[in-house]
Amino acid sequence: MTKLTFDITMSLDGFIAGPNQTTEQPLGVGGERLHEWVYGLRTWREKLGLEGGATNRDSEIVEESVATTGAVIMGRGMFGGGHGPWDESWEGFWGDEPPYHAPVFVLTHHPREALTMKGGTTFAFVTDGITSALEQARAAAGGKNVAVAGGASVAQQYLKAGLLDEFQVHVSPILLGHGTRLFDDLGPEPIGLKITRTVESPAVTHVMYTVVR
Amino acid sequence: MTKLTFDITMSLDGFIAGPNQTTEQPLGVGGERLHEWVYGLRTWREKLGLEGGATNRDSEIVEESVATTGAVIMGRGMFGGGHGPWDESWEGFWGDEPPYHAPVFVLTHHPREALTMKGGTTFAFVTDGITSALEQARAAAGGKNVAVAGGASVAQQYLKAGLLDEFQVHVSPILLGHGTRLFDDLGPEPIGLKITRTVESPAVTHVMYTVVR
Repeated sequence: MTKLTFDITMSLDGFIAGPNQTTEQPLGVGGERLHEWVYGLRTWREKLGLEGGATNRDSEIVEESVATTGAVIMGRGMFGGGHGPWDESWEGFWGDEPPYHAPVFVLTHHPREALTMKGGTTFAFVTDGITSALEQARAAAGGKNVAVAGGASVAQQYLKAGLLDEFQVHVSPILLGHGTRLFDDLGPEPIGLKITRTVESPAVTHVMYTVVR
Repeated sequence: MTKLTFDITMSLDGFIAGPNQTTEQPLGVGGERLHEWVYGLRTWREKLGLEGGATNRDSEIVEESVATTGAVIMGRGMFGGGHGPWDESWEGFWGDEPPYHAPVFVLTHHPREALTMKGGTTFAFVTDGITSALEQARAAAGGKNVAVAGGASVAQQYLKAGLLDEFQVHVSPILLGHGTRLFDDLGPEPIGLKITRTVESPAVTHVMYTVVR
């Protein structure tokens, strides 16, 4: 069955980006250090058209996530930032051939025609809310999972709405001190989780959780 | 060599206690759920004079922490709360036989005579700051480690001062949403860490870090 998931790298102190995020520096000050565990992996280098790189437990985790994802949901900020009506010439942060290779549903308040990119990525723009985006993504996922790619506020909205089934956090060994928190504004009630898998690595700690309803 | 460490249970969203901490409810609302992984362990039940309980990887981790600790530092809030000059009849939260079985150094602004409790725990009250408390604890630790027991602000002070060598976080599978954060107010510079050990368990994820200077 199609599950709603996310798969996000977080600092030990809970941040998924450093402070002062801008269009030029989408991960904020220091935020790229969160993802150091990925940069040396063959799976990552292949996406960038580079040769070489490590194959290890970390790369298996990345490959698994790619293999099980059939459709993606993201916020406008993660697609390409900005506010207000679209500049239709702006095709987002991800270049001609985005690394998703799947249907992507972008949450926005402003309608826009869908974009078809190279390599199997399409961007559809959803203006009628998170439940509608989830229904559209489920229908497009071909029985695989729907992944919330980010940002944090989109992940929080699905979590608070009780729509998230499971998620994986890659806990990066750094204390950023400031920035955007993955888990924030979650409401007054604690949310129970169940650990479904832990994979250790010298670079990062991968923990998969199921949301307990 | 004597290292300065801490060993603290944290929710996945970074809290070591729930909101509204009081003397009657020192872990705040919902905070006792953080420690559910400990309550069933034989090592914990023994401390309370109870029989039975589980022996597993989690209990080994607790035993290791006890065995390697020679002295403890804590804030006044963790000893017994309160502000201003001491009520000398108040011997803190921990009962006649506190679970430390070691010299404990309590940071406070108000001088007080040392207390000798049952079972090898002594409480000395340190009014001249964190460096003095560390020197005194090192001298008392008999070559074992000095552990910062808490609260969060004391751990943060040692971390920011560059005095902490390593620490272990037990990441509990719960999102508390509100409360006291373990890592907060850390200053503008990211702090680099190195993962030195990861121990998985179905109940909690134990990760040990070395602070990279």
